[in-house]
Amino acid sequence: MTELFFDLQSTHNPHRWFMPLTPAVCVGPPDNLFMYGGIGLASAIAAMERTCERPVIWATAQYLSYARPGSVVDLDVWVPVQGKYNSQARVIGHVGDQEIFTVNAALGARPSTVSHQWVTMPDMPRPEECERSVLWGDQGDNLNGRLDVRMAKGRYGEGPRTGQLSADGRLVMWIKSVEDFAVDASLLAVMADYVPSGVGAALGRQGGGNSLDNTLRIRRIVPTRWVLCDIQITGIHGGFAHGVMNLFAQDGELMATASQSVIVRMMD
Amino acid sequence: MTELFFDLQSTHNPHRWFMPLTPAVCVGPPDNLFMYGGIGLASAIAAMERTCERPVIWATAQYLSYARPGSVVDLDVWVPVQGKYNSQARVIGHVGDQEIFTVNAALGARPSTVSHQWVTMPDMPRPEECERSVLWGDQGDNLNGRLDVRMAKGRYGEGPRTGQLSADGRLVMWIKSVEDFAVDASLLAVMADYVPSGVGAALGRQGGGNSLDNTLRIRRIVPTRWVLCDIQITGIHGGFAHGVMNLFAQDGELMATASQSVIVRMMD
Repeated sequence: MTELFFDLQSTHNPHRWFMPLTPAVCVGPPDNLFMYGGIGLASAIAAMERTCERPVIWATAQYLSYARPGSVVDLDVWVPVQGKYNSQARVIGHVGDQEIFTVNAALGARPSTVSHQWVTMPDMPRPEECERSVLWGDQGDNLNGRLDVRMAKGRYGEGPRTGQLSADGRLVMWIKSVEDFAVDASLLAVMADYVPSGVGAALGRQGGGNSLDNTLRIRRIVPTRWVLCDIQITGIHGGFAHGVMNLFAQDGELMATASQSVIVRMMD
Repeated sequence: MTELFFDLQSTHNPHRWFMPLTPAVCVGPPDNLFMYGGIGLASAIAAMERTCERPVIWATAQYLSYARPGSVVDLDVWVPVQGKYNSQARVIGHVGDQEIFTVNAALGARPSTVSHQWVTMPDMPRPEECERSVLWGDQGDNLNGRLDVRMAKGRYGEGPRTGQLSADGRLVMWIKSVEDFAVDASLLAVMADYVPSGVGAALGRQGGGNSLDNTLRIRRIVPTRWVLCDIQITGIHGGFAHGVMNLFAQDGELMATASQSVIVRMMD
């Protein structure tokens, strides 16, 4: 098991984990920090993989409430189905008796030699050739400072926010952790929660959204330093946006796909 | 509310619904029929929309067990969060004390004039110009016979199953209900459960898969007789396949997007 990006702690009960919240796993302005949604999905994935001793195939988080720094999230792992090759599991994440998130998932691996991907990595300059992007400005000591996010300037939508709709709704960026944590399913879950960043780019406006959920599907994780996150906002209507993300290793391997629905928030 | 494709019945408790299972909502060989997974998601969506009196934005079903014709599925609706514009809800679907599926979802609508789609409908012959496809052969009286599925022969993968991998992993087909039910979120959920049909087409082999989950995101539902279901298998590894589907009205409006992970099952 790799070292985790967050402080997940075990207990006497292999189905019960906890995670103290510090600004390092939160986002928002300094006086209103809250746990980053992707950390909810990520910590649940890490807990389930350790409890079930199987890798996650698919996991969906439902975000119900906010958790604040200084509090401790309890993660209770339930495994309603345990089969020969795969398990069906869920995690209830709560602070005290307040439910913060629920994650449903399947875990496992089957004997199979079939391995193929039908989506290809878009052509991007190497991460070393791209400048580091600051998506939310400097809000002090929080999770944003722990991710190194780079995109080819102006190429995929970081450019002018003049109200002109993007032609393809895409935003493509390289991400790695500043601390160079190894890429595992839980770190991919943190990156997958960047889908809302595509909303402002797609609309050509300053804005993003609040995640209602986050769905991650793991195909195959390979060693890589950077992950290319190819976001497409598929559509917006009635105040909600929907988007997908393909996550590639530097060598072009499709490691995971993700999707998300968000409440659209405009800041202009 | 439209008439439903399945027999969802109310009770004295607005949070509690039930659905008697008949072959009309099941699939499989005559001696081994089971509830079609998409009916689980669809019935949960219909129950939540009626309980919350709000439209579904996003819903994910986790499939835990099988339910058989002759049994009755109880659908219990829980609403942990009720906001000004949106609700967070879940449905536990069970037969007796056996959990069959769980659905997590968000419902609602917000005042907003922003409406756009960034994905476009692929160019297909009109449904009237396409022959009806029989994906699983005639297995008698079950749900398959209630869906009229049409694809341009050989064009997107229905063609030869010679073991040659499809170039793009896509399978595009028109679907409507034979009984001409109006298209609503629950009927889209039934159609969204066709993602596994793309697995055989992508691999160029006879096969499909068992759904682990089904995730549906509703953008905007408009009146249409047929729905174009554009499936892409994104990748396969370790015995599991992942795929996405875009669901369009006949006029090209993106009504919904869906995604699914499946256990790959080969029949050749």
